[in-house]
Amino acid sequence: MHSLKSLQQLITEAFSSAGFVHEPLQLYEPIAYTLDIGGKRLRPVLVLMSCDLFGGDINKAVYPAMGVEIFHNFTLLHDDIMDNAPLRRGRETVHQKWDINAAILSGDTMFVIAYEYVAKTDPEMLPEVLNLFNDTARKVCEGQQYDMNFETKSDVTIPDYMQMIRLKTAVLIACSLKLGAILAHAAPMDAEKIYEFGIELGLAFQLQDDYLDAFGETSKFGKAIGGDITTHKKTFLFLKAFELAKGDTLIKLTNYFFDQEISEEQRIQEIIALYRQMKIDEITRLEIENHHRKAMEMLESFEFKPDMTREMFGLMQEMFGRER
Amino acid sequence: MHSLKSLQQLITEAFSSAGFVHEPLQLYEPIAYTLDIGGKRLRPVLVLMSCDLFGGDINKAVYPAMGVEIFHNFTLLHDDIMDNAPLRRGRETVHQKWDINAAILSGDTMFVIAYEYVAKTDPEMLPEVLNLFNDTARKVCEGQQYDMNFETKSDVTIPDYMQMIRLKTAVLIACSLKLGAILAHAAPMDAEKIYEFGIELGLAFQLQDDYLDAFGETSKFGKAIGGDITTHKKTFLFLKAFELAKGDTLIKLTNYFFDQEISEEQRIQEIIALYRQMKIDEITRLEIENHHRKAMEMLESFEFKPDMTREMFGLMQEMFGRER
Repeated sequence: MHSLKSLQQLITEAFSSAGFVHEPLQLYEPIAYTLDIGGKRLRPVLVLMSCDLFGGDINKAVYPAMGVEIFHNFTLLHDDIMDNAPLRRGRETVHQKWDINAAILSGDTMFVIAYEYVAKTDPEMLPEVLNLFNDTARKVCEGQQYDMNFETKSDVTIPDYMQMIRLKTAVLIACSLKLGAILAHAAPMDAEKIYEFGIELGLAFQLQDDYLDAFGETSKFGKAIGGDITTHKKTFLFLKAFELAKGDTLIKLTNYFFDQEISEEQRIQEIIALYRQMKIDEITRLEIENHHRKAMEMLESFEFKPDMTREMFGLMQEMFGRER
Repeated sequence: MHSLKSLQQLITEAFSSAGFVHEPLQLYEPIAYTLDIGGKRLRPVLVLMSCDLFGGDINKAVYPAMGVEIFHNFTLLHDDIMDNAPLRRGRETVHQKWDINAAILSGDTMFVIAYEYVAKTDPEMLPEVLNLFNDTARKVCEGQQYDMNFETKSDVTIPDYMQMIRLKTAVLIACSLKLGAILAHAAPMDAEKIYEFGIELGLAFQLQDDYLDAFGETSKFGKAIGGDITTHKKTFLFLKAFELAKGDTLIKLTNYFFDQEISEEQRIQEIIALYRQMKIDEITRLEIENHHRKAMEMLESFEFKPDMTREMFGLMQEMFGRER
């Protein structure tokens, strides 16, 4: 059994020793820069942890796990071009630091590198792993498209939104877990169940991200509060508020959200105040809790050894920043 | 044994019946549009033809062959963004008809779809096929990066250029042929040899494209003459001319090539006249002939049945527009 810490270390070391810089440097330097950003390495850790939970050899899962992480970072790189985002985790984005062409082509190359790591799967499991990876990659692209569509679509519903974040965020979390299960030769039913666990976990994770954008503390959240409000993002909070708002509240909400005249600082303040007044914070916490509980129940339905599930709970706590 | 015509038809029908349009339409319509452009379907036909030459079952090669063609069209789509190209085969490019974001994301999705088709390879051959495909995709990206670097690099040599077109164009031709060989269970040595044949074929093919840009007939070439001159592309013709030019000729060449004052029409006329004067047309024809002959010799070194090689020669004639 491996601790969460040791798995994180294994992934960190694997990335440090991989060496992504080759000729032509104009192509590979943005890739090394992107993969150097680090972060929690949540997805590859989930691959290893799931592999471990199902009694597999985690050493055989390191390369495919890295493939998932490289794919994830590729999507962030291309999403940042599409969203015209200047910063990612406090550092300049690739299209900002280099240019759009560098960001497109080094992104494409990262996508190939992701497949190279996936290809290092045991040949016996490769067809299943490749199908899972392809299916996931396609869904993530579809999720990004829906996310972009929603920017100009006026009648986005909460089910629309949940389907979008399922595709854009949750399926890759789910894929990571299922990948670990496949590599551990888990029973197909168990691989499906851990995938569904991942979907619930991923939904809760994205909703928490929405929540923290309005109600988090900058120091813990790692980015400025109100970014979603400034960029008029139709998050769960926004959609729930617009679903519930009536009369004066609806007028205020619309004005503050879209008014060109007010400062961004004021917009954020007023919108968050309205959210609180409408108990959007509580409603969102309940929704997160709902998906989180479903995930926990699924995890408990497996007959893993207690010390093994403990590490998974530990990771979930790290993801959701709670005490046990 | 299958005729060139029947192989082309098989690929055309496979594409017509594939059905690339799904929800979200904003994502899939640009993909269907791109794949509908058609063209000679050279690469997938090479996959099938090579599979046929080595005695394989071409029906098992159709999906991977489509994967290669979808990948090729994905690279054109993203290259067109990077080159800021308004037209491709006489039709608006995706970033022109939709926008850059649509072109980035539908390109990424095409790349996934390419891998989905590759994944439909017999599991037994999948690891080898996937490695070949990954290696090729990475090289094509590197080739595009060198091509972009050359735009601002002042000391590009002919060996630099040959290495660039090897990566950007020839390896995908070579990959197509090797893929067919692998799927036909050809001996590894034969698969390597047909790959090298493809490299020579690909180099000749790209040099011919350079040649036709200056010395072709618009009606046969399918695009306007002088496009490479207008865009200041450092082709084989340009590099050879600058390598050989001395004194007055060098001054004239530099002036006509880079002068901001003259019309594009005059630039094309003057540069082509200088090329002719310096016998760049003959030198380029010799270079094409050189790679073409190497390719022919390699092909003849195989002990294919004569009626089988005839179809490959037929395809080469179609590629190079010559009489037998």
